[in-house]
Amino acid sequence: MKTRTVIFVSDGTGITAETLGNGLLSQFEGIEFHHVRLPFVDTHEKAQHSLERIKAIREHDGARPLLIMTMMDAKISATIRQSDALVLDLFEAFIAPLELELGTRSSHTAGRLHGHSHREYANRIEAMNFALAHDDGISDRKLKNADLILVGVSRSGKTPTCLYLSMQFGLKAANYPLIPEDFERERLPDTLLPYRDKLYGLTIAPEQLQRIRQERKPNSNYAALENCRYEVAAAERMMDRAGITYFDMTARSIEEIAVQLLQAVRKED
Amino acid sequence: MKTRTVIFVSDGTGITAETLGNGLLSQFEGIEFHHVRLPFVDTHEKAQHSLERIKAIREHDGARPLLIMTMMDAKISATIRQSDALVLDLFEAFIAPLELELGTRSSHTAGRLHGHSHREYANRIEAMNFALAHDDGISDRKLKNADLILVGVSRSGKTPTCLYLSMQFGLKAANYPLIPEDFERERLPDTLLPYRDKLYGLTIAPEQLQRIRQERKPNSNYAALENCRYEVAAAERMMDRAGITYFDMTARSIEEIAVQLLQAVRKED
Repeated sequence: MKTRTVIFVSDGTGITAETLGNGLLSQFEGIEFHHVRLPFVDTHEKAQHSLERIKAIREHDGARPLLIMTMMDAKISATIRQSDALVLDLFEAFIAPLELELGTRSSHTAGRLHGHSHREYANRIEAMNFALAHDDGISDRKLKNADLILVGVSRSGKTPTCLYLSMQFGLKAANYPLIPEDFERERLPDTLLPYRDKLYGLTIAPEQLQRIRQERKPNSNYAALENCRYEVAAAERMMDRAGITYFDMTARSIEEIAVQLLQAVRKED
Repeated sequence: MKTRTVIFVSDGTGITAETLGNGLLSQFEGIEFHHVRLPFVDTHEKAQHSLERIKAIREHDGARPLLIMTMMDAKISATIRQSDALVLDLFEAFIAPLELELGTRSSHTAGRLHGHSHREYANRIEAMNFALAHDDGISDRKLKNADLILVGVSRSGKTPTCLYLSMQFGLKAANYPLIPEDFERERLPDTLLPYRDKLYGLTIAPEQLQRIRQERKPNSNYAALENCRYEVAAAERMMDRAGITYFDMTARSIEEIAVQLLQAVRKED
């Protein structure tokens, strides 16, 4: 397999460059990409040092590296551009047309909080703490403060989804497991009844649930395929009856489900 | 303040578009941006529907919206481009030069897992479960499997940092709080001694720690400024003595600290 080095250079964390870069590179099959990160390149000295690193990689590889950049400072950016590399500069490609459209100059400063304000940032941290405090229904005292409450069988993906919602979007997401007692009673836990308008559900194919539970508690009844089938069917029936919108985690990423939940909560379509 | 609408259109979650868009827009001060998300636009019908939405926004605003796009399908992309908007197309701007450089055609398929392979995705979920299971030293049985162990005083930001490291980079990050008993003994908990080479620390300005703790336990000794000063100084002294690299969370985002930790763990510079 062909190998190419891709270098993410940024005056910040480089996470934006890497996120977009991963999406771009996934479009090219049959090539293995070796990742190098050069974050926090925000001084002339660091730029010179990075230039040397890139040069060494170029010589070692015998092929131009791909350089994916988010860099606000034009001078630092110019230094990096001396590299013998394919340079894809995210800011350069878009800042100029935005300046024209908005009729104003950009401030050309490194976005320390990724363009989020301190207020938004504080909200995200608060939401993350909320998700942790309301994981698996441990505390139901403050469910009324939740933006949404996720229900579903054990290991259907509620916890990572809640954490992602809090971290990425600042949503206060609680989760509440549906357990065998609920299935026997054939109705939602009483605790949840006052919050029906902010209940959403997750479901998952029984076969996938079995694999996940099997890793956690091998050869238990909990992990048995038959039990997984029973629980998933009972949970879906319960959610259907209560009119709860639910999403299928099977073959879906947490990011995808999180965005669908965000839209549902915000009543966007 | 001037207001402009920015629309994130994607055949996937749109998270990449929004992340980059936030970074770009943060460069323009004095303008308030109203965000609209149009994710999962992956059929001709959805493209038509989105086109109508964009048209309605254009008419309502009396100004062209900014359209930030990640769209793999050229036909769907062409439909959206009929909008009277400033179109910033992340993939179009970069896919073409990459095809030229790599000498191969891109597969033009929506990256369902954001360019991550299923294997990488499974690693991230596993790492997230690891972080949750090893939060605040609750279980120290498997510390030997950790990629890193974060120490620091209570509320210094260990938990969100560990979760971010797991979710973004698939690192197995455990955390272990430094508590008054440790400060009295003036040395690290014995449990941590075998793992000195993967210990990293967090610290924080006592004033900021006080504000955070005050929200959690108002008017407690735990939250008192004097106690925060004592704990932070004792923790820093302990980490200095043990030769533990530590990072200051004050005025830093979790993303920034996470990338610095990633580099430290991977011995990158």
